[in-house]
Amino acid sequence: MMSRSHAAAATVVFALALPLGAAAQTGDLIVEKKTFEMPSYTTAGGVTIKNVKIGWEAAGTLNADKSNAILVTHFFSGTSHAFGKYATSDAVPGYWDAIIGPGKAIDTNKYYAISSDTLVNLNAKAPNVVTTGPASINPDTGKPYGMRFPVVSIKDFVNVQRALIESLGIKKLDAVVGASMGALQAYEWAASHPDMVGRIVAVIGTPGADPYLIGWLDIWAEPIRLDPKWNNGDYYDKEPPLAGLAAALKIITLHANHWEWAAKTQAGAADAGKDPGQALDNKFKIQATLDTAAAARAKTADANHLLYLVKANQLASADPSKIKAPALVLYSPTDVVFYAPFVEEVAKRIAGAETGTITGPNGHLNGVLAIAQAADKISAFLAR
Amino acid sequence: MMSRSHAAAATVVFALALPLGAAAQTGDLIVEKKTFEMPSYTTAGGVTIKNVKIGWEAAGTLNADKSNAILVTHFFSGTSHAFGKYATSDAVPGYWDAIIGPGKAIDTNKYYAISSDTLVNLNAKAPNVVTTGPASINPDTGKPYGMRFPVVSIKDFVNVQRALIESLGIKKLDAVVGASMGALQAYEWAASHPDMVGRIVAVIGTPGADPYLIGWLDIWAEPIRLDPKWNNGDYYDKEPPLAGLAAALKIITLHANHWEWAAKTQAGAADAGKDPGQALDNKFKIQATLDTAAAARAKTADANHLLYLVKANQLASADPSKIKAPALVLYSPTDVVFYAPFVEEVAKRIAGAETGTITGPNGHLNGVLAIAQAADKISAFLAR
Repeated sequence: MMSRSHAAAATVVFALALPLGAAAQTGDLIVEKKTFEMPSYTTAGGVTIKNVKIGWEAAGTLNADKSNAILVTHFFSGTSHAFGKYATSDAVPGYWDAIIGPGKAIDTNKYYAISSDTLVNLNAKAPNVVTTGPASINPDTGKPYGMRFPVVSIKDFVNVQRALIESLGIKKLDAVVGASMGALQAYEWAASHPDMVGRIVAVIGTPGADPYLIGWLDIWAEPIRLDPKWNNGDYYDKEPPLAGLAAALKIITLHANHWEWAAKTQAGAADAGKDPGQALDNKFKIQATLDTAAAARAKTADANHLLYLVKANQLASADPSKIKAPALVLYSPTDVVFYAPFVEEVAKRIAGAETGTITGPNGHLNGVLAIAQAADKISAFLAR
Repeated sequence: MMSRSHAAAATVVFALALPLGAAAQTGDLIVEKKTFEMPSYTTAGGVTIKNVKIGWEAAGTLNADKSNAILVTHFFSGTSHAFGKYATSDAVPGYWDAIIGPGKAIDTNKYYAISSDTLVNLNAKAPNVVTTGPASINPDTGKPYGMRFPVVSIKDFVNVQRALIESLGIKKLDAVVGASMGALQAYEWAASHPDMVGRIVAVIGTPGADPYLIGWLDIWAEPIRLDPKWNNGDYYDKEPPLAGLAAALKIITLHANHWEWAAKTQAGAADAGKDPGQALDNKFKIQATLDTAAAARAKTADANHLLYLVKANQLASADPSKIKAPALVLYSPTDVVFYAPFVEEVAKRIAGAETGTITGPNGHLNGVLAIAQAADKISAFLAR
């Protein structure tokens, strides 16, 4: 989930660029967090993890032949909370509430929408997130794994989701739909489990990270390794490396956005009484915005989980030529995380793939914040 | 200067993307480092610094009326070493040797080319760099300034250059020419000292940093603040914060480049025997490339100087409407530091400005590595 503080932090960044109501469309859809457990899971790299848990939530009703399920896979800093609210008093609904719910593009009057937390989910400390990763207790030692947790990849995220789906008796998903790291998972589903995927909607992502993005992901991780409180990943009985984690989240927040957002909303000094020219510590507005958002987000995140997520994304490598399912590929032309030429090339390698763009001032984040633009396109694609 | 190790580090990154000889055009031009001293300098912010020194080097001959001088201003991680070699045995010449020297676009048979180290130059420990900044000894205390050094801006860099120029008896520069932070300085020269500037060639830069770039500059600085060895800037009698400094240089190196370079040269694992999927520490090639280059560059750089340079760039704010000198504005369409739309808009605000592009796989760095493309354009502009 997005906890209150996480959601509040996201709001700090998102609200600045958003027309009122664009992200915070209120719905009456109420969802409940559930937990899926596996006694053990063996990673694609061959390491067995005991007692694997992930959280999930759903809306709509699974039909008699269990053929109407749509899986929603989440982005790097996201959770299963893609649609609805946990309670009507929640400040904001799930991140893609604009397109998922009763009567919406992914119509939960028709489809059974399901979304799960990934392994090594970033927000390990958020009260409604259920995930297994370095912060989890290793049943063999009674202590957190830390850096002894095995490397996992997008393939592993999908394998665990598959076990969840099969536990519900679902043999084939009508669709897998996701943004950014969620798109990596959608491509992986279609390439590796072609018989289980009816179609995919891959938003602001490619099947694998290009070398420039692999370099950037490494830079996202760097501040954590520099924080002495990280202590090679062993900090669970001490103060966590919040400064390094917040710095990592700053980079991610800025990288996922765009100069147009900053130019429109972030000009000038943070504090009119503290001229940035007068002291090194006097901040510009954009610095303060990033610092505030990152510090809030760091509270519910785990630093080791971020490192493992970075690796999982670096390793993503679904083969687009193996994708036979119909694909709708949506991208932001101003994205500086997954650059448009890569997305366009991938779409060409998937037989019959349809493409579309999502525009706005937020670069990569257009795929989350401005997804309503693509509602009709998604709806029509699903109806085919 | 670029010391041997600094030049070698630059070569690591640059050579990967370069056709042979594009940056390393050998010339026989030999330059000598000199030092310019001021008993004191008062910053734009009103603080007086005693005993200010900057290094400079020149080629060509100043004519009788001292009207043929062209000032070359350097980029963020650069030095005055823009052209020629210190000795014929140097591995590489100055960074813009392709366009500066006898018979070249900036023809030192005709012009007196002069280039100086800025205040707070990044490469404070390089043997041929002369600069004044936080690593300098404060004559009043006998100790390094550290974070007690006053904030300086591009305006201060230009003011000190102006004192150097005036010390040579030059009343008006034929041109000011620079890339990136060098362009910030060229715009500042033309806007603040219109009677002293005949024309400017501003390459891959705008007169000021936009809010998105201000945010990125803050992120460049962040790893240094996270390194406990930074110690709030007091490390001159201890081990310097090399890890934080190297991490900062990693970000800068990747940010200044482009996905096309990475896709062409950086795919795959760093070490065929160490699958990145098998261990968190097993690196991809791009990680190793950045780590190697950054560690080498960190040896001659100073962490506090980087923080002060970040602030100086964030504060840049020359007013393009005050620029009356003819301007040639060259940019890289794939630049993700100074985005093309900002450069194009600035050019429109300068009366009669001419524009041109420099292309290649290196994004922002095309303005350094591929400057030879613009040689004829620069030559024609200077001849007008």
